[in-house]
Amino acid sequence: MSDRLIDEAALDLLAVGGAVLGSGGGGDPYIGKLMARAALRRHGPVRLMALAELPDDALVVASCMMGAPTVMNEKLPRGDEATVAFRRLGAHLGHRPDAVLCIEAGGINSTIPLVVAASEGLPLLDADGMGRAFPELQMVTFTLDGIAATPMALADDKGNSVLFETISNRWTERLARSATVDMGGAALVAFYPMSGAAAKRAAIPGTVSLAIAIGRRLADARAARADPVAALAALLSGVVLLDGRVVDAQRRTVGGFVRGEAEVAGVGEWDGQRLRLAFQNEFLLAERDGVAVATTPDLIIVLDSETGAPITTEAMRYGLRVTALGVRCDPRWHTAAGLAIVGPRYFGYDTDPPELLPRFVEQAVGHDLVGDQHLRPE
Amino acid sequence: MSDRLIDEAALDLLAVGGAVLGSGGGGDPYIGKLMARAALRRHGPVRLMALAELPDDALVVASCMMGAPTVMNEKLPRGDEATVAFRRLGAHLGHRPDAVLCIEAGGINSTIPLVVAASEGLPLLDADGMGRAFPELQMVTFTLDGIAATPMALADDKGNSVLFETISNRWTERLARSATVDMGGAALVAFYPMSGAAAKRAAIPGTVSLAIAIGRRLADARAARADPVAALAALLSGVVLLDGRVVDAQRRTVGGFVRGEAEVAGVGEWDGQRLRLAFQNEFLLAERDGVAVATTPDLIIVLDSETGAPITTEAMRYGLRVTALGVRCDPRWHTAAGLAIVGPRYFGYDTDPPELLPRFVEQAVGHDLVGDQHLRPE
Repeated sequence: MSDRLIDEAALDLLAVGGAVLGSGGGGDPYIGKLMARAALRRHGPVRLMALAELPDDALVVASCMMGAPTVMNEKLPRGDEATVAFRRLGAHLGHRPDAVLCIEAGGINSTIPLVVAASEGLPLLDADGMGRAFPELQMVTFTLDGIAATPMALADDKGNSVLFETISNRWTERLARSATVDMGGAALVAFYPMSGAAAKRAAIPGTVSLAIAIGRRLADARAARADPVAALAALLSGVVLLDGRVVDAQRRTVGGFVRGEAEVAGVGEWDGQRLRLAFQNEFLLAERDGVAVATTPDLIIVLDSETGAPITTEAMRYGLRVTALGVRCDPRWHTAAGLAIVGPRYFGYDTDPPELLPRFVEQAVGHDLVGDQHLRPE
Repeated sequence: MSDRLIDEAALDLLAVGGAVLGSGGGGDPYIGKLMARAALRRHGPVRLMALAELPDDALVVASCMMGAPTVMNEKLPRGDEATVAFRRLGAHLGHRPDAVLCIEAGGINSTIPLVVAASEGLPLLDADGMGRAFPELQMVTFTLDGIAATPMALADDKGNSVLFETISNRWTERLARSATVDMGGAALVAFYPMSGAAAKRAAIPGTVSLAIAIGRRLADARAARADPVAALAALLSGVVLLDGRVVDAQRRTVGGFVRGEAEVAGVGEWDGQRLRLAFQNEFLLAERDGVAVATTPDLIIVLDSETGAPITTEAMRYGLRVTALGVRCDPRWHTAAGLAIVGPRYFGYDTDPPELLPRFVEQAVGHDLVGDQHLRPE
């Protein structure tokens, strides 16, 4: 039995680590942290429960914010919408949930479930449905396992709420996305009600504690005046895609998403090379000098080169000094079923996911990759 | 106590009469009739209950189809969606409804509630919330009386359903309209749950039996080889706006509505005059030679000049021989509160509703109008 508790200090680490795993999406960690901090101060720390501790017959419900991150930054939640949605779903199910589950890793969506867990006095599961962030709600390992997103409750900051019962998770996404757009671009949801047995089978384990570990590694590196980006790359077995400066960033909020692209010009050893990053809430495609070097479902993580702070897609702007990392996703996403719902072709990119290769290996194919973590050879 | 029953013969009359009161909207009477006929054959006739018979503590729920009539003609309902929505709302309320209410008069929406009443073994109230048809769901006398549209259930032909709880009937319209568009442009709903006392206070009484009376009057006139249009004008105290031929009709389905306009060129005594009809599902504005002669909230009814059959906005086409009638709406719509939600300015027309005047009176103002029904002085 674990009795790990998420307190305010752990929350700070979780918010940063969630944003790293969020691959540019999942919202600004600052807003989620503020909301969760208020909830922790009011209700006390939240117990982090390992999947293995969960009884098979427990009722688990996922909680998250849905919408365009750009909107969330300007239209702050009222604070209790996530709990309203969670309670409404519980009332509909006629059963109080036993644990709260994260749908994804991300700045906001790693912390919103904490708000619900704190105010409901429930444990937060150390797991999620993506192992990263993705833009659409059917893009979870639960879908691969045949688990329905509905019954699903959605609540806005004005007091409106909607309960969905659908024939597929794609239909849930479609209907809930329209409601979210109507509601101003962001709403809070409770969905994917499932048994403990189903959660143990379908969820990606350990991602909340991984996010906390990421936050701690970054803080430790900064405290030791070590290179935080190198520290993170080592922790995540990440591959540097480019180190440089943002020279272009375009973004528009369409259909409830932030879509756009950014270009990074190489600096130092990367001088003369360019990385183009395309995104829909999350970074989905990285092309270096016209060649796809990382794509969804693998994680494309953009960090401030000096501090290692994660940069969300809505924060990309001209002049930022950034390092882009590629990190392997959960292997379930690389199956045919996984690629069908989150692969590059689903998003309209005519490519298969490339292998994530350190640059010098590309120049000498055949090099033994195992254990190779010399990512920034300075 | 009444024991009036709606059987197949009454249904035929109701479908036509509903379409007349539908003012060009409310859907094609043929489709609604087919659905209701199947239900009546299976479950037997439906009892038509006067508002006065309804116990104050009864639970009343309104049933209708929502969407663009053009879509309904091509995307036939599966048949049980209205009942699915009705039962889902009952389950949410934790109380089986005692009676079914029409939201509006119209070809489809006078008959869909019959499907539900028949399959649920419930009486149909002889009343509705508009006394005509209007395009948006908050446009009911219930809204004037402060009755909420939600909890509301919405179901599509695929098996998806949505339950709304909103802060206003305008919000319900907005969210439900988006869901309807997502679902392909048409969906079935159960909403405006209210007590018997509230229904007696807020509903427009007698409109189902009025629709049946209209259907009968048209059939009788045809059987007697009398002028059906004149017979209907007399029954409804209608004013002829123009008698002529459709020379133009334009229509597009946007945002879940059918919008467009049609032009009618006068024939016979109306030779040389033109009537322009603007519509959004229903006819909303009639301008004769540039002057508004009838607008929402009054009823603009377009009839086949020979048969008296009602012409819906989606059936308007070049060459049709039609007579347009103006008919006074329920007086509640002419209050300031009524005009605010269904008046011409709500729909973007810069005019107040004109008085409905027979043409010869316009030429000799001061003529005594009382009892004047000489509408077609041939």
